[in-house]
Amino acid sequence: MDKADNPIEQLESYDGELPIVATNRNQWFGGKARDTGRLDTLFAASRFESVAYVDIELETARAKEWILEEFRGNDVRLIISHHDFDATPDREVLAAIIDQCAHYGDIAKVATYPTDLSDTLVLLGALHEATQKGIDAAGIAMGEIGSHTRAIGHIYGSKLGYAPLLDDHDEYAPGQIPLGKLRALIEATRVDGTSLERIDAIEDDVTVPSELTLPN
Amino acid sequence: MDKADNPIEQLESYDGELPIVATNRNQWFGGKARDTGRLDTLFAASRFESVAYVDIELETARAKEWILEEFRGNDVRLIISHHDFDATPDREVLAAIIDQCAHYGDIAKVATYPTDLSDTLVLLGALHEATQKGIDAAGIAMGEIGSHTRAIGHIYGSKLGYAPLLDDHDEYAPGQIPLGKLRALIEATRVDGTSLERIDAIEDDVTVPSELTLPN
Repeated sequence: MDKADNPIEQLESYDGELPIVATNRNQWFGGKARDTGRLDTLFAASRFESVAYVDIELETARAKEWILEEFRGNDVRLIISHHDFDATPDREVLAAIIDQCAHYGDIAKVATYPTDLSDTLVLLGALHEATQKGIDAAGIAMGEIGSHTRAIGHIYGSKLGYAPLLDDHDEYAPGQIPLGKLRALIEATRVDGTSLERIDAIEDDVTVPSELTLPN
Repeated sequence: MDKADNPIEQLESYDGELPIVATNRNQWFGGKARDTGRLDTLFAASRFESVAYVDIELETARAKEWILEEFRGNDVRLIISHHDFDATPDREVLAAIIDQCAHYGDIAKVATYPTDLSDTLVLLGALHEATQKGIDAAGIAMGEIGSHTRAIGHIYGSKLGYAPLLDDHDEYAPGQIPLGKLRALIEATRVDGTSLERIDAIEDDVTVPSELTLPN
């Protein structure tokens, strides 16, 4: 929401089929929202029928645990996320972070920056371990050298994929893989018969609904 | 060579552009060659101009180190390989195996069987570590759950890819990815500008040269 022009109005006019994951980041978490009113705006978003998930930072959940039940009261599921834009924690620390995210939310999401390829293995290993423990986890290693974790994370149990849409071409972050290509990579590396029903609902040439695009 | 009908005659009639990696496995290494004459046949193959690499098992290299210089005398480079069809060794053991393969050969190749996804991470980690030490390493995790290591191993430094050609469709091992698809996956996950010149010489619809196909 922090990158949208009038997020609440835009949600009001959204009539697409796909459910929405709402997030409203401040600069500490890679976004542009001011702290004032940040969670209120996210809470307002969570009231919309179209918003199925809300992504709340672990640090926020920890500091303001009481808000979580209020969000749940609006019939949304919670993604509790941790971002590290500078490094990837050690395996044990990352596992503890995922455990905490899972404690507060329905899906534990971690995005870390790999300074070496061995960090991408730490991330994949932590996703696999959490999945084996029964946690619904999701994760990516950011940046160029972590890019492939977006494509193969699903093998290690990652439950969410993140991909820019065609209209986002000026907004790609390093390592991001556009939706059509990500879909093809996931499809090509799938081992089991897991359905990609939701992704099947998205055409490869889908563009951002006009009501959700940024003004030029 | 152990799966070819008349490998030496077939090499004689080979007039393709692509250099050949020759191997002649006995059953201990997943092949069909009898021990008697196995290395002699491989040695005869190494005399052909078209044969650029010979793959010799680490166990063979260790037991018969003197043959390595004889092979080199035929102007071939040596891939020294280790296969484990039942398991993946611990990280330290795998690193020691790669070091030994590199001690004897130009390329150290390991193929191990993952019993869990964490084993695929051990393999990728060992490839990365060896590459950082300056070793030309190659490796795959076999089987279905290791399949993606064939596609992303290059990111961790793996120097060789293995893919069946179209004519091999009855001979696919579990987890193998056909050439065209493997090429697309490698292309899609490449980070740097490394050239795929050699692969570019192969058309996606290439079939096994008739002189190298198995009789029906």
